[in-house]
Amino acid sequence: MLTRVKSAVANFMGGMMAGGSNGDHPGGSDLPLKYPYSRPEFLGLSPDEVECSADHIARPILILKETKRLPWSTGYAEVINAGKSTLNEDQACCEVLVVKRRPPGTSTPNRTPMTHLTFHYWALFDGHAGSGAAVMASHLLHHHIALHLQEVMEILCTPSLVPPTSGAPGSPSTPPTRFFTEKKVSHESLVIGAIENAFKDMDVQIEKEKAVYNISGGCTALVVIYLLGKLYVGNAGDSRAIIIRAGEVIPVSTEFTPESERQRLQFLAYMQPHLLGNEFTHLEFPRRVQRKEVGKRMLYRDFTMSGWAYKTIEDDDLKFPLIYGEGKKARVLATIGVTRGLGDHNLKVHDSNIYIKPFLSCCPEVRVYQLGQCEHGADDVLVLGTDGLWDVLSNQEVTEAVTCFLANCDPDDQHRYTMAAQDLVMRARGVLKDRGWRITNDRLGSGDDISVYIIPLMYGNKQN
Amino acid sequence: MLTRVKSAVANFMGGMMAGGSNGDHPGGSDLPLKYPYSRPEFLGLSPDEVECSADHIARPILILKETKRLPWSTGYAEVINAGKSTLNEDQACCEVLVVKRRPPGTSTPNRTPMTHLTFHYWALFDGHAGSGAAVMASHLLHHHIALHLQEVMEILCTPSLVPPTSGAPGSPSTPPTRFFTEKKVSHESLVIGAIENAFKDMDVQIEKEKAVYNISGGCTALVVIYLLGKLYVGNAGDSRAIIIRAGEVIPVSTEFTPESERQRLQFLAYMQPHLLGNEFTHLEFPRRVQRKEVGKRMLYRDFTMSGWAYKTIEDDDLKFPLIYGEGKKARVLATIGVTRGLGDHNLKVHDSNIYIKPFLSCCPEVRVYQLGQCEHGADDVLVLGTDGLWDVLSNQEVTEAVTCFLANCDPDDQHRYTMAAQDLVMRARGVLKDRGWRITNDRLGSGDDISVYIIPLMYGNKQN
Repeated sequence: MLTRVKSAVANFMGGMMAGGSNGDHPGGSDLPLKYPYSRPEFLGLSPDEVECSADHIARPILILKETKRLPWSTGYAEVINAGKSTLNEDQACCEVLVVKRRPPGTSTPNRTPMTHLTFHYWALFDGHAGSGAAVMASHLLHHHIALHLQEVMEILCTPSLVPPTSGAPGSPSTPPTRFFTEKKVSHESLVIGAIENAFKDMDVQIEKEKAVYNISGGCTALVVIYLLGKLYVGNAGDSRAIIIRAGEVIPVSTEFTPESERQRLQFLAYMQPHLLGNEFTHLEFPRRVQRKEVGKRMLYRDFTMSGWAYKTIEDDDLKFPLIYGEGKKARVLATIGVTRGLGDHNLKVHDSNIYIKPFLSCCPEVRVYQLGQCEHGADDVLVLGTDGLWDVLSNQEVTEAVTCFLANCDPDDQHRYTMAAQDLVMRARGVLKDRGWRITNDRLGSGDDISVYIIPLMYGNKQN
Repeated sequence: MLTRVKSAVANFMGGMMAGGSNGDHPGGSDLPLKYPYSRPEFLGLSPDEVECSADHIARPILILKETKRLPWSTGYAEVINAGKSTLNEDQACCEVLVVKRRPPGTSTPNRTPMTHLTFHYWALFDGHAGSGAAVMASHLLHHHIALHLQEVMEILCTPSLVPPTSGAPGSPSTPPTRFFTEKKVSHESLVIGAIENAFKDMDVQIEKEKAVYNISGGCTALVVIYLLGKLYVGNAGDSRAIIIRAGEVIPVSTEFTPESERQRLQFLAYMQPHLLGNEFTHLEFPRRVQRKEVGKRMLYRDFTMSGWAYKTIEDDDLKFPLIYGEGKKARVLATIGVTRGLGDHNLKVHDSNIYIKPFLSCCPEVRVYQLGQCEHGADDVLVLGTDGLWDVLSNQEVTEAVTCFLANCDPDDQHRYTMAAQDLVMRARGVLKDRGWRITNDRLGSGDDISVYIIPLMYGNKQN
């Protein structure tokens, strides 16, 4: 399926990939890579094919060679950027994992002799400033999730069991002591907690292993887990997941950007002003303040405000704003346009000692979709895409494209979801014309890396 | 309308009101009151009637004597608590205000010779630990809002005018300098900003005037402003506003409680741990941790988590949790059950030097309802109530009660909204039986102060 086009870039690529750096930023580390740069394992590409996929001129759309490689006949397609970075910094992973009971002696809430718990996992990572963090997360995040699920698997596998608030290692038969009132904790919130803490552990592992490996940049992470009849969508970054059911859109994630997280970022800067290194102000203004405006009035917002009001400009307001720019151009500390994700531990404001990381959160928002409680047809799907897709196509446009495409496919064709994913990527990339990549209505196509899953939901019904 | 019942409490009340304290907490300040304790001005009660209203046994429901006292035929009713505090700590204010142009020379964005801007204002304040803050806010908050609206009134009155980001005092004809891109600021967001900053100024004023006046306790604040075709609902606390349109509920406020604001409070405590005075932990557990559990595992949540996970208990986890208890019993620092509002500057954890105030926010959430964009009938209303109402009646129950009540009234009867408010308060208070105050289905009625506005929305249409 991979268009075999070689470009001038390919040779350079080979050099990059053979060398010690997996990013496209010069001056990289001399440390070894933990994992070599590649494309998602499930694509089953040869090294030659990986090279060809990085053609920034042809921008071949990669799709699954064999549909059976992914569970539920999941469709997947991707394309590299138009030259923004040498490598495709998006990464993806899809697995069916089995969590096994821990060895005897380490097991806590010990009641029934549960042996295993299966979950499905789909993930997209969108890297920046190198692909190291994205590659590493695509190899490891699911294992962190599995470890955290293992901690609670026996409770999850016993529908009637209320999670005991405490468990005593080594003394599994001790009933938990309860006094005062005890809060009810749902099974669902244990899965949410497992995903949340797995993201944190992944981020800590990246930080630690940077001491011995070259792990460049950072990445967003969007994961979907199917477990015991429910879909859990965990998102840290600006990728997006939507469900299309009977042709209607149901958003199941939120994007985390300098604009959507303004108040959290301003609150942090207000409480720990040293993080701004005396060079930035936590206040937001509609534009840069000029020295001659000191003493005059200008509109502003602080962390407590969603509206705007006037203030008298002081010297401190001349500092560069913590959040500056609008829409896709909005940046935190003039550096980064996404506010949640993994990695970025070394990222600093250019030519300064101001670290970006304290403002980035590795914690996902986890939303739950009760898959088992609703009947789904062959055209009801979950669409996951990196920002390359959503920058140029709205939820409504994606919904119309997918609904229309699937309606014209044989419902029994297992390839329909992959073909629909390919169609979506094509619609977002467009075709190369004199004036760049163009999509419907002569709009500009996405010059970014684009990765898309289309996951049919009817398989969830069948497994309940 | 006021049932003239005197109880043993009344004499004590007289003493309270004549004395230097307006709270029911002993050991009050020797400073004078800024405003004497009373009931809302629009009720037009005599001092005698105010005394009678405080009968904790009869709990008379007070309603408006003359409907014309409030704009839009607004209905209002209230009742005192069943003994929780000596005074009714709820307060209310309703005004139609005219914002006039500032004197020449101080006026900024100076374009058209605007002379005045009218807005309608309804407010409920629910005091705690004394009625001082609630009384003061009921006298003053609307003036702060008017002052902030005055700052932007000329922009608001010119529909075509994009708010200039800056204005130079004294040089009104200087066009604003613009460079780089400039963010668009809507008229609506200027009103939101005015309400937000008015709350902050009110809180600062309470803090400052505590040096010279006795201003006891704190209060929640729920305000509604009708301005230029839109309703702005600003809420700081656990009161609630809903719109009932064609018998359907539209929530227009959010409650701020230890549970709903857990992550904000935990984040603050995590970043400024000294605020916990080494006596509290910012982590949440499903119950108190016991010393013998150190080294064992227990469920927990931190500020990054909405789910739960296990952790190994350490010594630090034995500290009392920042947020403890569930539902109405949830408390911040074992002290307070509401997390936004005005006042409380002196409130400390019992027998300690730990201040509560840093965790309380005086900033409201402001939501906008486009009143002018929708036709409203005589039975479409905005209901505002303090938590005394919503603790015992759900949105749905209130909606059914109001819809049913209004359907049985003459649509031209100006008293119908007051009667409906009285009916709601009656349904929430219930009747005194052997086993306390009882409402429908023998449920326990509210023993709290209850205050309710019912504001018909059709008058908004007519004024556009």
